[in-house]
Amino acid sequence: MEIEFASSLLESAVTELSRLPGVGRKTALRLALYLLRRDPSEAVALGQSLIDMRRGIRYCRSCHNISETDLCPICSDAARDKSVVCVVENVKDVLMVERTRQFNGVYHVLGGLISPVDGVGPDSLEIASLIERVRHEPIREVILALSPTMEGDTTNFYIFRRLQAAELPGLTVTRPARGLALGNDLEYTDELTLGRSLIDRRPFENR
Amino acid sequence: MEIEFASSLLESAVTELSRLPGVGRKTALRLALYLLRRDPSEAVALGQSLIDMRRGIRYCRSCHNISETDLCPICSDAARDKSVVCVVENVKDVLMVERTRQFNGVYHVLGGLISPVDGVGPDSLEIASLIERVRHEPIREVILALSPTMEGDTTNFYIFRRLQAAELPGLTVTRPARGLALGNDLEYTDELTLGRSLIDRRPFENR
Repeated sequence: MEIEFASSLLESAVTELSRLPGVGRKTALRLALYLLRRDPSEAVALGQSLIDMRRGIRYCRSCHNISETDLCPICSDAARDKSVVCVVENVKDVLMVERTRQFNGVYHVLGGLISPVDGVGPDSLEIASLIERVRHEPIREVILALSPTMEGDTTNFYIFRRLQAAELPGLTVTRPARGLALGNDLEYTDELTLGRSLIDRRPFENR
Repeated sequence: MEIEFASSLLESAVTELSRLPGVGRKTALRLALYLLRRDPSEAVALGQSLIDMRRGIRYCRSCHNISETDLCPICSDAARDKSVVCVVENVKDVLMVERTRQFNGVYHVLGGLISPVDGVGPDSLEIASLIERVRHEPIREVILALSPTMEGDTTNFYIFRRLQAAELPGLTVTRPARGLALGNDLEYTDELTLGRSLIDRRPFENR
């Protein structure tokens, strides 16, 4: 590593910051110099919070949402309806649905969407664990709340087929009403539209 | 603090990240979730580098550039010409001038520019320490390498007057040739133009 700056400590901080997505070396340097101008406690609080977060957070054994415990607060909440499972792409989408305050069931976080172009097949996602969960737990409804994009629709359809093949007579598969703007990512949908679309959810059909 | 997320560790990391300039809560969340997806060593390396940087870096007693030692590597380098002092606005500008490889003297970092609008007067900057330095060290040339902006010109002129008032017969005050594009910040100038403008520096005159 070439020492570009007067200080190898600054060099390291800039190098580490520039590993973050969307942060180039110029931005990294600006952030590092900002922290140097501020009270030392700020950089220490930021650095320690990142270390603590990464060391303390794992994934819920049941829904694969982030959690500090074996079972996440939502899965272990007695007031949540365990018979309704909302399938989402990622952790951010759990936050989005929670904010609507329109959903009292539990989640299943896939960890992505099927995307052959990006080399993401069904086996890289938490789909097998969803099927297992639906087989062995008293689940009566699965809501497929994936983004209304090509990858989302492909993944919806794949999961729907797997659930059909599992032949679970008491199970309903639904999806949020297509009040969602087509082609947009779920995370950029406003809370009202997303909440409304959950209330209006309807049975999943083959297209 | 309201716990917006499933984890207070994530909440803390997002809050700390969003204190950085230009980082909103949405970006902070994206960065935190990115770190959660990566190997734990990455978040630890980033966090520790920020803590180490902030704890380890102080300011050079002579030039006020960042340093890990009482005197920075440039000031303590026997091969640098201590009789030529390049006055710059900030730490980033030292890096910019160093990259041109056209300057073998030492620096004086002001820590800003005079800007009455922003409440920055001469006393908030390292100007008195510059005058003291020029008075007591065998300095034959001061290069005023501030941005060719209104604040830069005001500061240039103020320092020039202070140096005149100090009546130091052997001292020359210069500035980089105005090949610099007017109205732009020094940090956005390309290395070639900046290097050239240092070679072409000429005596400072009253406008």
